[in-house]
Amino acid sequence: MTTVGVLARPDLVEAGPALRELLAWLHQREVRTCLDEATAALGGVAAADACRVTSGREVAAGADVLVVLGGDGTLLAASRLLESSVPVLGVNFGSLGFLTEITLAELLPTLQSVLDGRYEYAERRLLHVKGRRAGFPEVVGEVLNDVVITKAGPSRIIELEVSVDGFFVSTFRADGLIVSSPTGSTAYNLAAGGPILHPALPAIVLTPICPHMLANRPLVVGDQSTIVVRLVAARGVDVYTAFDGQHSYALAPEDTVTVTGSSRRLRLVKASGRDYYEVLRTKLKWGDSSLRRP
Amino acid sequence: MTTVGVLARPDLVEAGPALRELLAWLHQREVRTCLDEATAALGGVAAADACRVTSGREVAAGADVLVVLGGDGTLLAASRLLESSVPVLGVNFGSLGFLTEITLAELLPTLQSVLDGRYEYAERRLLHVKGRRAGFPEVVGEVLNDVVITKAGPSRIIELEVSVDGFFVSTFRADGLIVSSPTGSTAYNLAAGGPILHPALPAIVLTPICPHMLANRPLVVGDQSTIVVRLVAARGVDVYTAFDGQHSYALAPEDTVTVTGSSRRLRLVKASGRDYYEVLRTKLKWGDSSLRRP
Amino acid sequence: MTTVGVLARPDLVEAGPALRELLAWLHQREVRTCLDEATAALGGVAAADACRVTSGREVAAGADVLVVLGGDGTLLAASRLLESSVPVLGVNFGSLGFLTEITLAELLPTLQSVLDGRYEYAERRLLHVKGRRAGFPEVVGEVLNDVVITKAGPSRIIELEVSVDGFFVSTFRADGLIVSSPTGSTAYNLAAGGPILHPALPAIVLTPICPHMLANRPLVVGDQSTIVVRLVAARGVDVYTAFDGQHSYALAPEDTVTVTGSSRRLRLVKASGRDYYEVLRTKLKWGDSSLRRP
Amino acid sequence: MTTVGVLARPDLVEAGPALRELLAWLHQREVRTCLDEATAALGGVAAADACRVTSGREVAAGADVLVVLGGDGTLLAASRLLESSVPVLGVNFGSLGFLTEITLAELLPTLQSVLDGRYEYAERRLLHVKGRRAGFPEVVGEVLNDVVITKAGPSRIIELEVSVDGFFVSTFRADGLIVSSPTGSTAYNLAAGGPILHPALPAIVLTPICPHMLANRPLVVGDQSTIVVRLVAARGVDVYTAFDGQHSYALAPEDTVTVTGSSRRLRLVKASGRDYYEVLRTKLKWGDSSLRRP
Repeated sequence: MTTVGVLARPDLVEAGPALRELLAWLHQREVRTCLDEATAALGGVAAADACRVTSGREVAAGADVLVVLGGDGTLLAASRLLESSVPVLGVNFGSLGFLTEITLAELLPTLQSVLDGRYEYAERRLLHVKGRRAGFPEVVGEVLNDVVITKAGPSRIIELEVSVDGFFVSTFRADGLIVSSPTGSTAYNLAAGGPILHPALPAIVLTPICPHMLANRPLVVGDQSTIVVRLVAARGVDVYTAFDGQHSYALAPEDTVTVTGSSRRLRLVKASGRDYYEVLRTKLKWGDSSLRRP
Repeated sequence: MTTVGVLARPDLVEAGPALRELLAWLHQREVRTCLDEATAALGGVAAADACRVTSGREVAAGADVLVVLGGDGTLLAASRLLESSVPVLGVNFGSLGFLTEITLAELLPTLQSVLDGRYEYAERRLLHVKGRRAGFPEVVGEVLNDVVITKAGPSRIIELEVSVDGFFVSTFRADGLIVSSPTGSTAYNLAAGGPILHPALPAIVLTPICPHMLANRPLVVGDQSTIVVRLVAARGVDVYTAFDGQHSYALAPEDTVTVTGSSRRLRLVKASGRDYYEVLRTKLKWGDSSLRRP
Repeated sequence: MTTVGVLARPDLVEAGPALRELLAWLHQREVRTCLDEATAALGGVAAADACRVTSGREVAAGADVLVVLGGDGTLLAASRLLESSVPVLGVNFGSLGFLTEITLAELLPTLQSVLDGRYEYAERRLLHVKGRRAGFPEVVGEVLNDVVITKAGPSRIIELEVSVDGFFVSTFRADGLIVSSPTGSTAYNLAAGGPILHPALPAIVLTPICPHMLANRPLVVGDQSTIVVRLVAARGVDVYTAFDGQHSYALAPEDTVTVTGSSRRLRLVKASGRDYYEVLRTKLKWGDSSLRRP
Repeated sequence: MTTVGVLARPDLVEAGPALRELLAWLHQREVRTCLDEATAALGGVAAADACRVTSGREVAAGADVLVVLGGDGTLLAASRLLESSVPVLGVNFGSLGFLTEITLAELLPTLQSVLDGRYEYAERRLLHVKGRRAGFPEVVGEVLNDVVITKAGPSRIIELEVSVDGFFVSTFRADGLIVSSPTGSTAYNLAAGGPILHPALPAIVLTPICPHMLANRPLVVGDQSTIVVRLVAARGVDVYTAFDGQHSYALAPEDTVTVTGSSRRLRLVKASGRDYYEVLRTKLKWGDSSLRRP
C-alpha cells in the first residue's frame, strides 16, 4: 500500500487549505499519508489511521512518494532528508521555481499519474561533500545545489587552493568559491556569473566569487572528478563552508572541503508537458524583447 | 615501418632548421617521413626514398604519427585533414598554445616516447556539423574548436532559433552564436564570455555573441545532444557559419546548422609532465598577483 | 506662431489614426504642422495651409517642437536631422523605449504642456565623430547613441589602437569596439557587457566586442576627451564604422575614427512623473523577483 | 621651511634601509621630517631636531609633503588621516600599485621635483560617506576607493534599496553593493565585474555583488549625486558597511548609508613620464598576447 509523505514550508500559511484538500483526495483513494509535525500544524491536521505525524526524517524514510509544498529552499531541505530515489513533487505557491515547477492546479493530476506509475521525471545529480577541519569531526553530506566556501566578514579576501583529481588548478584570491552541480547552476552560481548547465550533464562547475584575477572564468569539470578546496589564508576574517545554503561550518586555514559527484539521484517529477528549457525561459525571461536594439 | 607526417605553417620561416633537424633525426632512426609541399619548401627539403612529398590530405592519411609545426591555427587545419586517431604532436614556435603545447626543446624527447609506444596523450572530442542551405548542397564537417553563426556586417543583429534534442530553447537576438567543444572553450568562446570546459567533458557550450537579452548566459549541454540553430531573420545583413574559424558558408533565413558530438577523437600528445591546468594557468596568467586588493 | 513637426516610422501603419488625431488636435489649437512625405503618406494626409509636407530635413529645420512616432531607431534617425535643441517627443507604439518613453495616451497631455512652455525634459549629450579614410573624403557626424568599429565577416579579429587625449590606451584585439554616449549605454553597449551610464553624466564609454584580452573591461572617460581609434590590422576581413547603427563606412588599415563630446544637446521631453530610473527598471525588469535564491 | 612626513607599512621590514637613506637625503637638504612611531621603529630611527616622531594623525596634519612607503592599503590608510591636499608620494616595494606607482628608484628624483615645486600630479576625488544607524551615533567619513555594504555570513542574500537624488533606483537582492569612486574602480569594483573609470571623471559607480537579478549591470552616476542605500532586509545574517575596506560598522534593517562626492582631493604625485593608462596596461596585462585567437 502506497504512502505519500508531505513536507511543507512551516510558515506557508496559504498551504493549509491545499494540504487538507490533498490529504482528503489521497485518503479517498486509500493512500496513506505521512506528515512532519510542522506540516501537520500548518494544516491543522491531526494524526489518524491513514495519516501519520512524525519527524521530517521519518517522513522521508517512509514515503513512497514525497510531496513538497513551498519553494526551492523547502525542496533543498527535503532532499537532504531523503536517502532513496522516490518520486518527489515540488509544488510552488507563487512564482515558478527551478525545482518546484508544479503549480497547485497541476498537483492532483500529476500525483494521479505518479500513483498510476506512468509519470515523467528528471533525475537530478547530487554532490558528495566532505569537510575536514582541524580539531573538529569530519562533516559529510550531500548537496543538490552547491557547496560554497566563503568569507563571513566585510572587506577581506581569502585564498583558496583548488585541485582537481590531484592536479593543482590555481590558488583563487576571492571572496569565495562556489562548487555547484548542474541543478545548482541556476542558483548562486548564476548570481556569481557562472554558466547554465543542463541538469543531466555529469559535470561540476567551479565559480569564484569576486576573484582578484586577470582572466577569471568559471571552470566546468566532469562529476567523477574529485575537487579539493584548501583554505590557504583567511587574513583575519571568518570563513565558512555552506551546504546548499542551509547548513554551514566554520573553516580555519589548512582545512579542506572535498567534493565529488554522488551516485545518488533525486527523482524530480515533472508536470506533464513542461520541459527544462521552458522553465529556464520563464525564469530568465528569455522571450522578453524589451531590449530590442534600435 | 613507421611513417611520421609533418605539416608546418607555410610562412613559419623559423621552422626550417628545426624541420631539417627533425627529418635527419627520424631518418637516422630509420623512420620514414612524409611532408606536404609547402612544408618541404619551407625546409628546402627534396623528396627522397625515406621522405615522401605529397598533398596535406595524403600526409594526414598515411602518417602513423603527425607532427604539426606552427600555432593552434595550423593544428586546427591539420585536424581537419585527419580521419584516424593517430598521435598528433603540436609544436609551438613562440608562445604556448592551448593545442600546441610542446616546445621545440621537448619535440625530440616526446617524439622518442611516441616511437617507443609509451607516451601520454589527451583525447580531444570533435563536433560533427551539418549545414542545410536552401539552393546549395549540404555542408558536412567536423570541428575541433567551434561552429560560429554570425552576421557579417555592421550594426545589425540577427535572430537565431535554437533547439536541443527537439526542445525549443530560445530565439537568440544577438550578433551571433558560438557552438563550442570543450577544446574550443578557451578560444572564441572565452572572448565572448563563455566558461572553460575541461577537454574530457562530454559537453557542448552555446554562447551567444552580444545578445540583446535580459539574463543571457552560456548554456552547457551534453555532447550526445543534437543542437539545431535556425536562422530566423537577418534584417538585411549577411550571415555566415564558420567551421573552426577557417571555412565559412553564407546562410539565408530558414537555413539550419546542426551540431552534435562526433565519435572521432583527436589524440593530442602531451609533453611529459605538463597537465591541462598548467597550460591554463600559464595562458591565463592565473598565478599573477598584480591585482591584489589593498 | 508655433510649428509642430511630425516624423513617423514609414512602415508603422498603426500610427495612421493617431497621426490624424494629432494633426486635428493641433490645428484646432491653431498650431501649424509640418510632416515629411513618408509620414504624410502613412496618415493619408494632404498638404494644407496649416500642414506643410516636405523633406525630413526641412521638417527638422522648421519645427519648434518635434514629435517622433515610432521606436528608438526612428528617434535616432530624427536626431541626425536636427540641428537645434527644440523639444522632441518620442512616442512608442508598443513597448517602452529608452528614448521613446511617451505612450500614445500621454502624447496629447505632454504636448499640451510643451505648448504651454512648462514641460519636463532631459538633455541628452551627443558625440561628435570624424572618420579619416585614405582615398575618401572625411566623414563627419554626430551620434546620440554610439560609434561602432567592427569587422564585417566571420571568424576574424581586428586590431584597434586606442588613444585618449594623446595617451596610448591599448591595442584591442577584438571583433570590434563600441564608443558610446551615456544615452547609448543601454543599447549595443549593454549587449557587449558595458555598464549603464546616467544620461546626464559627461562621459564616454569604450567597450570592446569579444576581446581576446586577459582582463578586459569597459573604460569610462570624460566626454571632453578626444578618443582616437586607429585600425591597425584587419587580417583579411572587411571593417566598418557605423554611426548610431544607421550609417556605415568601410575602413582600411591606418584609417582613424575620432570621437569627442559634442556641445549639442537633444532636448527629450519626458512624460509627467516618469523618471529615468523608472524607464530603466521597466526595461531591465529590475523589480522582477523570479530569480530569488532558495 | 618644508616638512616631509613619512608613513610606512608597519611590517614592511625591507623599507628600513630605504627610510634611513630618505631621511639622510632630506636632512642633508635641510628639510625637516616627521614620522609616526611605527615608521620610526621600522627604520630604527630616533627623534631628533630635524626629525619629529609622533602620531600618524599629526604626521598627516603637519606635513607639507607626505611620503607613503608600502602598498595601496597603506596609502588608503594615510589618505584617511589627511585633511589637506598636500602632495602625496606613494612608493611601492614590489609590484606596481594603482595608487603607489612610484618605484624606490624613482623616489628621490620625484621628491626633488616636488621640493622644487615643479612636479606632475593627479587629483583623486574622494567620496563623503554618512552611516545612520539606529541606536548608534552617526558615522561620517571620507573614502578614496569605496564604501561597501555587504553581508558577513554564509549563504544569505540581503536586500538593499538604492535611491539617487531622491529617485528610487531599485531594490538590489545581492550579497552586497559597492559604491566606488573612479579611483576605487580598479579595486573591489573590478573583482565584482564593474567598469574602469578614469580617475578624473566626476562619477560614482554602483556595482552589486552577486545580484539575483535578471539584467544586472553596474550603474555610473555623477559624483554630485546623493546616493542613499537602505538596508531593507538581512534575513538573519549580519550586515556591515566598510569604508575603504579598512573600517567597518554593523548595520541593522532600516539603517542607511549615504554617499556623495567630497570636495576634497588627494594630490597624488606621479613619477615623471608615467601616465594613468600605462599603469592600467601594466596592472591588467593589456599588452599580453597569450590569448591570440588561432
